[in-house]
Amino acid sequence: MPDFKTRDFSGDHRWLSINTATVRKQGDLVEILDACTRRGIRAVAPWRDQVAAVGLDAAVRAVRTGELALSGYCRGGMFPADPSKAAEVRDDNRRAVDEAAALGAVCLVLVVGGLPQYSRPGSPASKDLALARSQVEDGIAELLDYAREAGMPLAIEPLHPMYAADRACVNTMAQALDLCDRLDPGRSGALGVAVDVYHVWWDPQLEAQIRRAGRERLLAFHVCDWLVPTTDLLLDRGMMGDGVIDIPRIRGWVEESGFTGFSEVEIFSQGNWWEKPMGEVLDTCIERHRSVV
Amino acid sequence: MPDFKTRDFSGDHRWLSINTATVRKQGDLVEILDACTRRGIRAVAPWRDQVAAVGLDAAVRAVRTGELALSGYCRGGMFPADPSKAAEVRDDNRRAVDEAAALGAVCLVLVVGGLPQYSRPGSPASKDLALARSQVEDGIAELLDYAREAGMPLAIEPLHPMYAADRACVNTMAQALDLCDRLDPGRSGALGVAVDVYHVWWDPQLEAQIRRAGRERLLAFHVCDWLVPTTDLLLDRGMMGDGVIDIPRIRGWVEESGFTGFSEVEIFSQGNWWEKPMGEVLDTCIERHRSVV
Repeated sequence: MPDFKTRDFSGDHRWLSINTATVRKQGDLVEILDACTRRGIRAVAPWRDQVAAVGLDAAVRAVRTGELALSGYCRGGMFPADPSKAAEVRDDNRRAVDEAAALGAVCLVLVVGGLPQYSRPGSPASKDLALARSQVEDGIAELLDYAREAGMPLAIEPLHPMYAADRACVNTMAQALDLCDRLDPGRSGALGVAVDVYHVWWDPQLEAQIRRAGRERLLAFHVCDWLVPTTDLLLDRGMMGDGVIDIPRIRGWVEESGFTGFSEVEIFSQGNWWEKPMGEVLDTCIERHRSVV
Repeated sequence: MPDFKTRDFSGDHRWLSINTATVRKQGDLVEILDACTRRGIRAVAPWRDQVAAVGLDAAVRAVRTGELALSGYCRGGMFPADPSKAAEVRDDNRRAVDEAAALGAVCLVLVVGGLPQYSRPGSPASKDLALARSQVEDGIAELLDYAREAGMPLAIEPLHPMYAADRACVNTMAQALDLCDRLDPGRSGALGVAVDVYHVWWDPQLEAQIRRAGRERLLAFHVCDWLVPTTDLLLDRGMMGDGVIDIPRIRGWVEESGFTGFSEVEIFSQGNWWEKPMGEVLDTCIERHRSVV
């Protein structure tokens, strides 16, 4: 592994991680990890459904064979739910922690869920965002005990406000860090945030909140780009350099605040990058990581 | 006019205003104002291009004939620009103030603009959101002097973060109110905010910031709904009641904070409400204003 003390994201693709959703349409997880390994990519971040499709054991073997680090595991969360689903929410999240630990992930990324009818289908419809947010806090509090036992840090990912209803009702860094402060006041390292530039680049408080997070709370850093126009709320993310986000500026804030992890590329791109050959996408990620990120 | 002191938005469509973009595809401004008047709607908020299409004099006559109040005039703004366009930006915004005054609007709504290449096409491309924000502040500061002379309050409209690049880089109530505090520390009434539930419903600070705004800063209140799924970033707004926004809760905060203006319906809806007959849309706005807002 490269030396964390002297690291610089830019110009060195040993600091690049590939979130495997970026090429999820082009192959299964073992194929993706193999393609990453052959290119000298040192880290990945897989999704649970991709792991389930090949089986956890095969995924663990592919990670070990490639000597890959895991910059994160996607994902736990989806806490708001009808009370009758409490056991389902708890057990599902505990399994995510166990899988993340088996794979050796740096953290389990939490997409916390929005209103209960979208977070856990079958829950009664609600417009009570404040209640959903309190359910998120309760859910993380409960999971945190389990995750501490497993030695698995939890990374709350604030999602763009356009996902507040259906994916995550934690929508700013300040809100995520307030949660961290209440649930882990000692800054133990067990709870922090995943900073995805796509979700937070617009935030007038972004620099201040990244500095507030500091080394103990900065658990993951995700990159892609915001396209203008954006044609789909979920599946039209851009390759770094093709949009309007000043990624080097944000990366600078993250590094200055003590983050020493990977720069993880996560692109959902129906109709563009998902339609290209896997090798072309990965090569482009490497090239853009050198030239843009 | 109804009595402002005892007003309650709900159940009384004298408190309803129609932003004329809601039926912009179905007729010209004079036809829209006439249709509103015939239904007992007491207020409207026209757009500049709709006024220009019929001529300012005809628009003023239609407003007077219908004894209509103007809950706002849309819109000034689009401040970030190449310095060579400074005079264009200034003059364009001064004309907007003059038109708003001629029409008797309660306020001129400001959509402040995003990055300069989108705010004022022809400006060089930039990713510097902080610079765009400082240009917005300078632009509002300059316009405010002119608007004070004209007696026309300026209402900064924080737009949803998904528009940060191309429409408005003021994206939260807190950010808009910080601007107000710096440019009008005396809370003179000359500068405030337009609260559109579509743009701000997700904000964890919303209640606190509405209370912070208070009567002097709350200049306009816009309603529609957030649909799940939303199929277009701009043109898929929902009719009140068809989405997930808890409008009565937000309306309560606004009223408790001293707002005494109209509840203005503003819906951009390609493929749905824009395709229906004008009368049906207006009748639905009245009915939903009674039952939902």
